[in-house]
Amino acid sequence: MGNFQVRTDLALEAREGITEGECGELRGVRVEEDYDEEHDIRITKVFIETRNAAKLMGKPVGIYVTMEAPGLVEPDDDYHREISESFAAQLLQLLPEGDRELSVLVVGLGNREVTADALGPQVVDNLCITRHVVKEFGKAAYNCSKMNQVSSLEPGVMAKTGMETAEIIGGVVLQTKPDILIVIDALAARSTKRLNRTIQITNTGIQPGSGVGNHRNALTEEVLGIPVIAVGVPTVVDAATIVGDALKKWMDEDADDKFDSRLAFAELNNMYMTGKDIDAVVKRVSYTLSEGINIAMEKNSVVYGS
Amino acid sequence: MGNFQVRTDLALEAREGITEGECGELRGVRVEEDYDEEHDIRITKVFIETRNAAKLMGKPVGIYVTMEAPGLVEPDDDYHREISESFAAQLLQLLPEGDRELSVLVVGLGNREVTADALGPQVVDNLCITRHVVKEFGKAAYNCSKMNQVSSLEPGVMAKTGMETAEIIGGVVLQTKPDILIVIDALAARSTKRLNRTIQITNTGIQPGSGVGNHRNALTEEVLGIPVIAVGVPTVVDAATIVGDALKKWMDEDADDKFDSRLAFAELNNMYMTGKDIDAVVKRVSYTLSEGINIAMEKNSVVYGS
Amino acid sequence: MGNFQVRTDLALEAREGITEGECGELRGVRVEEDYDEEHDIRITKVFIETRNAAKLMGKPVGIYVTMEAPGLVEPDDDYHREISESFAAQLLQLLPEGDRELSVLVVGLGNREVTADALGPQVVDNLCITRHVVKEFGKAAYNCSKMNQVSSLEPGVMAKTGMETAEIIGGVVLQTKPDILIVIDALAARSTKRLNRTIQITNTGIQPGSGVGNHRNALTEEVLGIPVIAVGVPTVVDAATIVGDALKKWMDEDADDKFDSRLAFAELNNMYMTGKDIDAVVKRVSYTLSEGINIAMEKNSVVYGS
Amino acid sequence: MGNFQVRTDLALEAREGITEGECGELRGVRVEEDYDEEHDIRITKVFIETRNAAKLMGKPVGIYVTMEAPGLVEPDDDYHREISESFAAQLLQLLPEGDRELSVLVVGLGNREVTADALGPQVVDNLCITRHVVKEFGKAAYNCSKMNQVSSLEPGVMAKTGMETAEIIGGVVLQTKPDILIVIDALAARSTKRLNRTIQITNTGIQPGSGVGNHRNALTEEVLGIPVIAVGVPTVVDAATIVGDALKKWMDEDADDKFDSRLAFAELNNMYMTGKDIDAVVKRVSYTLSEGINIAMEKNSVVYGS
Repeated sequence: MGNFQVRTDLALEAREGITEGECGELRGVRVEEDYDEEHDIRITKVFIETRNAAKLMGKPVGIYVTMEAPGLVEPDDDYHREISESFAAQLLQLLPEGDRELSVLVVGLGNREVTADALGPQVVDNLCITRHVVKEFGKAAYNCSKMNQVSSLEPGVMAKTGMETAEIIGGVVLQTKPDILIVIDALAARSTKRLNRTIQITNTGIQPGSGVGNHRNALTEEVLGIPVIAVGVPTVVDAATIVGDALKKWMDEDADDKFDSRLAFAELNNMYMTGKDIDAVVKRVSYTLSEGINIAMEKNSVVYGS
Repeated sequence: MGNFQVRTDLALEAREGITEGECGELRGVRVEEDYDEEHDIRITKVFIETRNAAKLMGKPVGIYVTMEAPGLVEPDDDYHREISESFAAQLLQLLPEGDRELSVLVVGLGNREVTADALGPQVVDNLCITRHVVKEFGKAAYNCSKMNQVSSLEPGVMAKTGMETAEIIGGVVLQTKPDILIVIDALAARSTKRLNRTIQITNTGIQPGSGVGNHRNALTEEVLGIPVIAVGVPTVVDAATIVGDALKKWMDEDADDKFDSRLAFAELNNMYMTGKDIDAVVKRVSYTLSEGINIAMEKNSVVYGS
Repeated sequence: MGNFQVRTDLALEAREGITEGECGELRGVRVEEDYDEEHDIRITKVFIETRNAAKLMGKPVGIYVTMEAPGLVEPDDDYHREISESFAAQLLQLLPEGDRELSVLVVGLGNREVTADALGPQVVDNLCITRHVVKEFGKAAYNCSKMNQVSSLEPGVMAKTGMETAEIIGGVVLQTKPDILIVIDALAARSTKRLNRTIQITNTGIQPGSGVGNHRNALTEEVLGIPVIAVGVPTVVDAATIVGDALKKWMDEDADDKFDSRLAFAELNNMYMTGKDIDAVVKRVSYTLSEGINIAMEKNSVVYGS
Repeated sequence: MGNFQVRTDLALEAREGITEGECGELRGVRVEEDYDEEHDIRITKVFIETRNAAKLMGKPVGIYVTMEAPGLVEPDDDYHREISESFAAQLLQLLPEGDRELSVLVVGLGNREVTADALGPQVVDNLCITRHVVKEFGKAAYNCSKMNQVSSLEPGVMAKTGMETAEIIGGVVLQTKPDILIVIDALAARSTKRLNRTIQITNTGIQPGSGVGNHRNALTEEVLGIPVIAVGVPTVVDAATIVGDALKKWMDEDADDKFDSRLAFAELNNMYMTGKDIDAVVKRVSYTLSEGINIAMEKNSVVYGS
């Protein structure tokens, strides 16, 4: 019944569980790294290509892009524009190729009333929505010969709707038949170091049980019938996890076997940890993501005569 | 593309167009009036029973309940409780009879960001949502042998979603299969006298073109496959309408034929008129409606042993 | 007790009352007009220079700048940047000259909960606030040898605070001793043509009774002891005014003498008229004003070595 | 520059530092306990009566009331009414005695944009504000021969205003001359057990450095010249504190001497921990406090003829 879903679902952190070096050599897993020195953006792509590798990594077959941009927490508008551009480029690579116009439904998951969980809803607030205009006036309304249709939805959380998010999204997909779904969500990181400065993009959607949370119903192509790109930024750390990790640091190294932090600190279940300036951070990061999606959708359009 | 739908869809005002007395005698139209003197609540029920009557009234066959409660604008909590109780009683009369438990989806139409249009979303904020709990833990969670399942949705406005409200609701109804839909919306009245003190309840849903606005897609049983109860409170007056009405008062009586205020005052299209204290009024009225729905849903439940 | 103050306080509209041409020739009144064709921004400055002229104009001695920018209602980010730059330039001309650093308190008047009245609070949300940083870490924190200190306040409305806005601002000015006050407010225009596309800037502050509203206490240099620049954008039209004006158009020309619209339409008192997309408009315009103030404050600073 | 102030300022928890029993016998400290079994509300009053005791307790001379009401987190309206009544009774005991009418300024501290810190602003939203009405129309407006004047202020946080909260409040007190100040704030507890179910009331105001936070300027009678009652409910736990406490539990008992958790976990500074349903909890608790203040203010009034 809790509101926002605490998960430790950064692929980068999942990878860290595997011994250094091992991952790159894992059959069926390919890793590409790229560092944009000028803008201090590090991009890591993990391609999980076989079922076997998926089992080993505990993540489904697909592409996992992680953008690490320390400046995402800084209040510098020009720099955020660079991150938006870079994010748009990554997004475009995961969109279906070809000249076909796309109808894209962007869904902002999470609870607008809980600051650290408001990322999805706030991203949706600043999108350039075009579907209804194209439907009514045609592409000519935008002077384009190719023009994507963007729609958006803020489904709300189960405690307030009484419905699973997947039920609501499933119904809207059935009725409005978008070509692709982009799902935005606030994530939970394992380490405070990643908070608010990492963007994760994957074409595998959101899997039930992929993290700590209890979102029972998947948002995946298998379930919804259309490709699902999931975009997330970690804004919280699960409380029991961080306490457990801190304890392990202080105890000897094989402490891992000795306890499960969730059992040890039952009072911390359903609690999360976040920064004091989370309102300013979520406002800034959500705007950067909105701009990135707007750029990607526009780049994918073709103005007459061009 | 505008946000909130300005309509003059009070059945009571539609009736006023017909010469005094005529309506009551109209074949196929039955009117019941009731006045609760203690609480100053006047309830008028118009039953449109034949297709012919529907054509004459310009409203579909069905039941139209109008509650006039002048105190709805007053900041008196006890009095609002009385209105909630009275509203709940009216609502229950429109719900399907019998002992069957109901799954009820309550939809808050309108734009949360525009104060006068935020009635629907604010009603939904204060509902007692039970569907997810009953689904997971059974009626036992509430110690009931009969227990309604309440879910809710705030679909947002087309300018922000790019989708027709009816598309979103249609999809969610398909997926979650409620027995009945209750739709809450802010309405437009013709006269400032009715603002914020009239509650209209009808079992005909919301018809396209029933008012001035352009909501193309109906929210009706015919379209959605389940009964639709529409609840509305007028919070605005259409600007062109009020100016036209004022002009008619000052001109001679057959002015009616001479002009259409919408043509005369093109600059007033897409404008509406509302009171300066609209934030306090919408907050109070929406709470009164939420409480009414909560009472109706609870009354309809049966606690074990009772 | 009503919330937001409906006034018809555009100096430009006050001027229109005076017969064409008359104003320019009025002794003690000087008018400068400027038109930026590229950006379609028309700037009119009225200098009221003598007490006698002030009496004739019904406005205190001072400078009244009106920027008419039709594109202010369009969703074009680049164009809004141009308006911000132009607004910043006008603002700088009204700030005290000289090399002295300024401590500037920006006050957002109005009611955040009423969309059309939320301009002031929303402007304040996006300001670059520096006073507390300069006070704690010195100008060095911004690498500047001259650095203005910006602070801000959202005093709220009397119905919610129980205090006059002027009492709250007066107290904060006493304690924090800014050099200058900038007051932002949503205004009421007489004509719908000016809505949301006119910025008015004046160095006379806000006078009680200058408009239709009842803000009893002045926000002026005389009362507060520091210069007060008032910035306003009309977002509403007073309902009684517009109905009265419409009536006059339909009646013969000397109708003026025959009635006062406020008496004629008592039911319209405390009502105002606004557009259906007011949420999007206020969001955009307030951001443009914030940016303008941020630019002006930064331009007024001197980076080391420059 | 961070927004909300993390403090561990529950007097009850300060007391727990002192060995069991010791406190009650401490010269200059008097403790009264009361348990309302019917409503499960435990009230503990600590009277610190001498300077020496104040030094030992690390808290200024004054009265500290702690109400422990486990049901404060439950969504039961009737029960909350009981807590409101009990809270009102405690509040009245701290107000100046006598028949004099009081002018009371209620200040909601904290950041409305950060859910766990929004308690103060949300309490202020639901208060019954009377000062401006009494000032304009006299007590007769409420049909009372004795009628308190209630005003309220939401000063905002320093990161957004550039001013110390104490500067803003100090100025408003100077101008509006209330008889007493009630300050509402979200607090930080040391233990998750106390979260959202403890109300602390004290007549000592808020002291700089009383907790972990850095609110430099006091809100006390000494500084402001009028009595200050501080009301707080813990909604967060400081992250470093809870990790440190967890570690101590796992390590041997004299671990206390070995480390300061703030040094050990530098990465946790400026982070806090809260529950996933914090939005619902803050909404409910703030309403309960508002009602309590409204009841206290009304009880303190005298209706004509009574």
